[in-house]
Amino acid sequence: MNHQFRTYLVTGAARSGARSTVDVVQAAIDGGVDAVQLREKGATARERYHLGRELRATTRDAGVPLVVNDRIDLARAVDADGVHLGDDDLPVRVAREQLGEDAIVGRSVSTVEGARDAEAAGADYLGVGAVFRTDSKDVSDEQSEVGLDRVRAIREATALPFVGIGGITVANAESVAAAGADGVAVISAITAADDPRRATEQLGEAVAAGRAGR
Amino acid sequence: MNHQFRTYLVTGAARSGARSTVDVVQAAIDGGVDAVQLREKGATARERYHLGRELRATTRDAGVPLVVNDRIDLARAVDADGVHLGDDDLPVRVAREQLGEDAIVGRSVSTVEGARDAEAAGADYLGVGAVFRTDSKDVSDEQSEVGLDRVRAIREATALPFVGIGGITVANAESVAAAGADGVAVISAITAADDPRRATEQLGEAVAAGRAGR
Ligand code: NI
Repeated sequence: MNHQFRTYLVTGAARSGARSTVDVVQAAIDGGVDAVQLREKGATARERYHLGRELRATTRDAGVPLVVNDRIDLARAVDADGVHLGDDDLPVRVAREQLGEDAIVGRSVSTVEGARDAEAAGADYLGVGAVFRTDSKDVSDEQSEVGLDRVRAIREATALPFVGIGGITVANAESVAAAGADGVAVISAITAADDPRRATEQLGEAVAAGRAGR
Repeated sequence: MNHQFRTYLVTGAARSGARSTVDVVQAAIDGGVDAVQLREKGATARERYHLGRELRATTRDAGVPLVVNDRIDLARAVDADGVHLGDDDLPVRVAREQLGEDAIVGRSVSTVEGARDAEAAGADYLGVGAVFRTDSKDVSDEQSEVGLDRVRAIREATALPFVGIGGITVANAESVAAAGADGVAVISAITAADDPRRATEQLGEAVAAGRAGR
């Protein structure tokens, strides 16, 4: 499977206003989103399981990959395409053992060393960030605002596809792709947009422009 | 495997004082503990993974079953004997699918209906509670202090083995077994004891007395 995601939606009901996560995901699919990650920090595993089954039906119909944040067991339970792991989660190697060669295993990194380690461990793609300032509370100091120079350095250091994440908007997405990211991962830029479908389209256009300008 | 655990230790570094969880588990094993559950609420999955591998080595040497709270993927990753699930976790059926027929799948319940549902879903044993008042913060109102009458009612309602949990001490363990529990699950009664090995022995003796008196 191609893991060069241009637009990548991370779900977050807390930042989706009155809209359901399923509605936001459907709008993003209509706008051409390339991948969806079930995150929903703060929800229980049971809640994520029920939501994940709904998202699996929606994304499968559209041919869009679904990955699950953190939990390999949940990914299997909802028949997701893979998982996305961070420093606090189970290792990439464990996910590969449990999910098999065909699964998508993503890894969050914030440094060149982290990118190299993830590639060596067998990750399929990276989430690099936080690129810009973000109000997300699960970003440690050393991971905050790594900037476009770090994106360029990680592009030099790894052959893996990667998306930039953290503080990315329609306005700055082009710069992230121009710096070397294959795409952008967002929560609020889609979930909190007036028109999530249009926002997804605009993010895709911005990424295409940035990649073309390299 | 026999799932009639007389003494069942739930790990909790926060209530183990200066002792490491591995040391507490070894002392409980020396005192004859019948099962160990890796819980460690508040630890990351990565931290639980490393601790779980240590506990697996310790418990395997002693022939003591190790189950992992909540996470099926973590149970597989550390080669545990099974998982223990609650209302907020993935369903028993999912654990059975992912871990297989030989795995131990436990379920927390606080009502007769919950016990029947867990038995129907294929659980191997139950944790019934909270039997007594407990300062544990992950107990909802309806689960708090269900009392010995509830233990008796659940004993009538199910053929599954079960341990009482919640506020259990050396002083009250006999009453829990006399009411129908096969054993007792504890955190502090072992982890915070002056002598965790002796506390485990005393809990086992209290349970034996309670079972003999039925
Ligand atoms: Ni068994």
